[in-house]
Amino acid sequence: MSVNTFGHLLRVTTWGESHGPAIGCVVDGCPPQIALSESDIQPFLDARRPGQSRHTTQRREPDEVRILSGVFEGRTTGTPISLMIENVDQRSKDYSEIANAYRPGHADYTYDAKYGFRDYRGGGRSSARETAMRVAAGAVARLVVPQVSILAYVAEIGGDRIDPANFDAGQIAQNPFWCPDAEAAKRWEALLDDARKAGSSLGAVVECVATDVPAGWGAPLYAKLDAELAAAMMSINAVKGVEIGDGFHAARLTGEQNADPMSPGDDGPQFAANHAGGIAGGIATGQPVTCRVAFKPTSSILTPVESITRDGEATEVRTKGRHDPCVGIRGTPVVEAMMTCVLADQFLLHRAQCGSASTDRA
Amino acid sequence: MSVNTFGHLLRVTTWGESHGPAIGCVVDGCPPQIALSESDIQPFLDARRPGQSRHTTQRREPDEVRILSGVFEGRTTGTPISLMIENVDQRSKDYSEIANAYRPGHADYTYDAKYGFRDYRGGGRSSARETAMRVAAGAVARLVVPQVSILAYVAEIGGDRIDPANFDAGQIAQNPFWCPDAEAAKRWEALLDDARKAGSSLGAVVECVATDVPAGWGAPLYAKLDAELAAAMMSINAVKGVEIGDGFHAARLTGEQNADPMSPGDDGPQFAANHAGGIAGGIATGQPVTCRVAFKPTSSILTPVESITRDGEATEVRTKGRHDPCVGIRGTPVVEAMMTCVLADQFLLHRAQCGSASTDRA
Amino acid sequence: MSVNTFGHLLRVTTWGESHGPAIGCVVDGCPPQIALSESDIQPFLDARRPGQSRHTTQRREPDEVRILSGVFEGRTTGTPISLMIENVDQRSKDYSEIANAYRPGHADYTYDAKYGFRDYRGGGRSSARETAMRVAAGAVARLVVPQVSILAYVAEIGGDRIDPANFDAGQIAQNPFWCPDAEAAKRWEALLDDARKAGSSLGAVVECVATDVPAGWGAPLYAKLDAELAAAMMSINAVKGVEIGDGFHAARLTGEQNADPMSPGDDGPQFAANHAGGIAGGIATGQPVTCRVAFKPTSSILTPVESITRDGEATEVRTKGRHDPCVGIRGTPVVEAMMTCVLADQFLLHRAQCGSASTDRA
Amino acid sequence: MSVNTFGHLLRVTTWGESHGPAIGCVVDGCPPQIALSESDIQPFLDARRPGQSRHTTQRREPDEVRILSGVFEGRTTGTPISLMIENVDQRSKDYSEIANAYRPGHADYTYDAKYGFRDYRGGGRSSARETAMRVAAGAVARLVVPQVSILAYVAEIGGDRIDPANFDAGQIAQNPFWCPDAEAAKRWEALLDDARKAGSSLGAVVECVATDVPAGWGAPLYAKLDAELAAAMMSINAVKGVEIGDGFHAARLTGEQNADPMSPGDDGPQFAANHAGGIAGGIATGQPVTCRVAFKPTSSILTPVESITRDGEATEVRTKGRHDPCVGIRGTPVVEAMMTCVLADQFLLHRAQCGSASTDRA
Repeated sequence: MSVNTFGHLLRVTTWGESHGPAIGCVVDGCPPQIALSESDIQPFLDARRPGQSRHTTQRREPDEVRILSGVFEGRTTGTPISLMIENVDQRSKDYSEIANAYRPGHADYTYDAKYGFRDYRGGGRSSARETAMRVAAGAVARLVVPQVSILAYVAEIGGDRIDPANFDAGQIAQNPFWCPDAEAAKRWEALLDDARKAGSSLGAVVECVATDVPAGWGAPLYAKLDAELAAAMMSINAVKGVEIGDGFHAARLTGEQNADPMSPGDDGPQFAANHAGGIAGGIATGQPVTCRVAFKPTSSILTPVESITRDGEATEVRTKGRHDPCVGIRGTPVVEAMMTCVLADQFLLHRAQCGSASTDRA
Repeated sequence: MSVNTFGHLLRVTTWGESHGPAIGCVVDGCPPQIALSESDIQPFLDARRPGQSRHTTQRREPDEVRILSGVFEGRTTGTPISLMIENVDQRSKDYSEIANAYRPGHADYTYDAKYGFRDYRGGGRSSARETAMRVAAGAVARLVVPQVSILAYVAEIGGDRIDPANFDAGQIAQNPFWCPDAEAAKRWEALLDDARKAGSSLGAVVECVATDVPAGWGAPLYAKLDAELAAAMMSINAVKGVEIGDGFHAARLTGEQNADPMSPGDDGPQFAANHAGGIAGGIATGQPVTCRVAFKPTSSILTPVESITRDGEATEVRTKGRHDPCVGIRGTPVVEAMMTCVLADQFLLHRAQCGSASTDRA
Repeated sequence: MSVNTFGHLLRVTTWGESHGPAIGCVVDGCPPQIALSESDIQPFLDARRPGQSRHTTQRREPDEVRILSGVFEGRTTGTPISLMIENVDQRSKDYSEIANAYRPGHADYTYDAKYGFRDYRGGGRSSARETAMRVAAGAVARLVVPQVSILAYVAEIGGDRIDPANFDAGQIAQNPFWCPDAEAAKRWEALLDDARKAGSSLGAVVECVATDVPAGWGAPLYAKLDAELAAAMMSINAVKGVEIGDGFHAARLTGEQNADPMSPGDDGPQFAANHAGGIAGGIATGQPVTCRVAFKPTSSILTPVESITRDGEATEVRTKGRHDPCVGIRGTPVVEAMMTCVLADQFLLHRAQCGSASTDRA
Repeated sequence: MSVNTFGHLLRVTTWGESHGPAIGCVVDGCPPQIALSESDIQPFLDARRPGQSRHTTQRREPDEVRILSGVFEGRTTGTPISLMIENVDQRSKDYSEIANAYRPGHADYTYDAKYGFRDYRGGGRSSARETAMRVAAGAVARLVVPQVSILAYVAEIGGDRIDPANFDAGQIAQNPFWCPDAEAAKRWEALLDDARKAGSSLGAVVECVATDVPAGWGAPLYAKLDAELAAAMMSINAVKGVEIGDGFHAARLTGEQNADPMSPGDDGPQFAANHAGGIAGGIATGQPVTCRVAFKPTSSILTPVESITRDGEATEVRTKGRHDPCVGIRGTPVVEAMMTCVLADQFLLHRAQCGSASTDRA
């Protein structure tokens, strides 16, 4: 019941603050004999790393991950895998002006209300810096379920949505927005430039799809695949909404419109639609598992917002620092990592209860 | 790590199938010395009970709850509280036609893929019947956090939304839809009558608001208050989406539009807005905690839907039984119960780590 | 983190008090497709049931178990298995004299100190009555690991030990003491008759051996097989000590004397000794897993013992009721059940992390 | 359900191998606002550190602990506390001769059977090196329950027991054996010298006593204080037995002999004896909590022991390295740390369920 731990059997415990000496995580429960080195993890961290385009924060964090345990002669041993990244760019001076004020929309006030302290150096534990370790853990999880493909991308920024007709997975890595629609990417460039120049910020919607998830994965009732995904996504900084399949749109459909008809197929049932997002009763159907995640605009903006100090005095907070105008962009690899962790965890849960032959009829 | 258990410290383990002899739950971790009898629980079950209007399923389940343990001389003892409801109306014959077919949109196929059996009697463990025990547990949880008020209502059916200007909490119990808008309730009556006559079904959006949640409740990072709510809601049958505060709408706002400015108040900070839904960094701000939940239309409809049999043959499934045309209606007390359970659990977590004086500055 | 739940993946949650309407448990995580009916469980409950000889309490509890969920058409479904036994013989009048006094050596005072109540009807939750559900759960667990054989017996009563030379497993069920040594059984009969007539009580040592436990089961570091066994045994009423293998005796040996030499065998290594009790580093070696458990004499005796009332007045407590002169006897099936639950749980943990091919070299 | 995590609410996750770059732990759940720096932890590590007398291994591990997170301006923040010790003395060459052989009595064979690898560098994860992190975590736990005093000492080496009449707590830190009996310490010096010269090893019994544990701490039924202690102790390397209070001796007493009579006192009940070791029904009575722990002699001895290689060939193993002739000595601070962790955890559990006023009658 560690609240800084994620997962049931593939257990990821993260630690560290934005301005401490390091951040890290411990991945416990990983199966043995999986080939693993830093080079399996570093590319995912590099993808999330800030400062790679003018559209994300200009902090410089090399984010070099070290494996401190759990690997012997290039393979996992089944014992805890400790991963660590040293914090390099800890310019606390940037934050000195707001040391005593609560930044609205951040966790400054609530951490103080709960724990009685104000880490003025930039969010501390509540900083999105922690999500680097989720990405690192996700890279390990990916090796646990190599049979599954997981892909996240940005579907909408500031209300401007991609056109499904333009969807091209090959585009996602070709622009700074994880955007699968080359035309939308161009429009977003302008949108983001405007927002950055205005010291403003924009929200985003990220979508994530997992294919080749075997029918049967999922653990009813309170560790349902969709419930686990919802918790995983909502635990990411700035996320305010989660949908599976058609999500809120399904609430506006009739039963007929929302049906996913089945027909016989060579390789299990064929489905004529996937309104359900690949999950029924909390268990995977074998269709693509789809999920949508709403990121609010970052609260760090140039426009002053009314606030109070720790002493209860009125003040104003405006942010001049190196913040992301659209946190959803850098959140995309995090969404992908979290879905990967959930699926790897569900794989182990499924294997525990149902064994390897679980999908065969007894 | 029981997947049929919900909560960290107030632990609710449910058991039972729709057509077994009984359903029940065990509530562990409840503080001692709380006055508790069946009469504290039964009204909530009665509110959820089917067959109370023509707009919900006509099954007759008296749903009389018995307390089998954990209470001595009218007070909780701190030991496990066992609650049980006998299943009375188990007309399995209703389901005989579909015994061998998978009902699309239900968990028939996925349970079979996972566990290798097909409980043809009506959903078995995946039936919404299980949610009766969530409501019962929620009634216990309510007594653990009497300082908090929690209210759920239906905000939208079939795409027809209440008018916030008409919101009247007093209306909620005055119509069969948990609708706080008397005019919307009238419109929904017609909508539901039409759907029922057509053998169709409609989706719904349920909203839930908790007031007087103390600032500081919540457990970062992976048991964040919003992450726990998301998991709780998504674990309810037919739920496909969850929003906290402005949810997906926040993804379309700028940072300025989405700001929740703070100002000094007599009783802690005042907030000029609540886009965040009362949660920042996973911890309650002291504002109302707000949550929106999307229910898909029930998959049980009169129109035949293509499906397959267990043997892989093509077939069609249509439902003539006693089903809810809009499961969101009966889901409303379940949403309320789940939010109550989450808050009671977070209260205990907070007390464990931060003690009673936690909101005082050290 | 339910403190009334035992196990990691085969999760047993027990509920109920000695004088409530019923006791029960929920077994979650059981693999599907295992043949299970009440007749698989009842014989184990009958073996533990009191009143079967003059050497155990004369309470009459038929202890008829009912399966309320988790089984469909004679097979487990993978969903929670709810087991219940109604309490029949609830003569609370027997306890009326001590209603206000704390019975020394019982949990009366400590439950009151913790929870603020005194269940004068006979122990309530702290009664050994709860162990009936452990035996029931153990009967289910046995079906999860049919490859393993588990046998518990009494090795010592009142300091009188069996002679290993006389060990005959066939004797165990032939006497009222679970004694594998026919001569010791005769001596114990006299010992117990004397103790009962004197209104006294005796302690006992129970041994339990599991054979055919595959090398590799066990989960280092904090769910080591031996650590799990120690917790399981120490959680049984009246247990004060646990040993694995040579236990405390090993502390008096030299490294040479305590060695378990290995040699090549057809079927994995052969061991020339088993001082370690079949466990090294928390993982099974493939040898018999052996465990010894010390039961104190029951605290319920005819001789008055000084005590205090709830109001803090001096008093004396003597027990005239229907108590076990040697609780270790009826504890024997409980020891066996707990070891079975631990092994079944470890099997699932092992399968989750290491899969079915885990003992093959990669 | 991380098997490398200990505790329910004060959660300690350890990681690292004896010959990796570092070992560490994450302590989650620690209350905020506790003054904490490395200087609170280092003295306990220094006490456990090897090479401090000729009676323990001559490995040189400076064991300098670093706090990497969870502390801000000298106080705990309520977020995860990451502790790390770099491994300095990693002379793997010492182990080269046994690289391919399984050391009998060690976990070499069982880790290979479970995970499929042989870390020939000295035990890897199964090494007692990991216990350094338990000691570090125990130092943090101590600050969570400052009201409790916990003291461990060696009561017996090689069968030679201290004389209770000579017990002097002040002696414990005055000799290299944690021995409270100055005369026994002299005898043990000779015993250990003989064993070391002979390349042999000796077992030990460690006792641990906690005073001022409030009546009411403990969490029935499966997280009983004694069950938690049993698991904690049995999880320590080389431990084979655990006793609470009189332990196995109680099994040889009558009910009269084993009674702990109570009488009225100014400050709660007075007890005339403490056979129970301060625990009844899994809950603290307010008396000293006492525990005894049996350590086997280390398996690393100079005398050759028959074994097999990874390839299944017969071989012999003898240890010329820098091993502890009596691991119980260095295990003593570990026993103390584990009892401290258990008590701190139970304190949090108790506060969660029963609040601060729990010991008052309602």
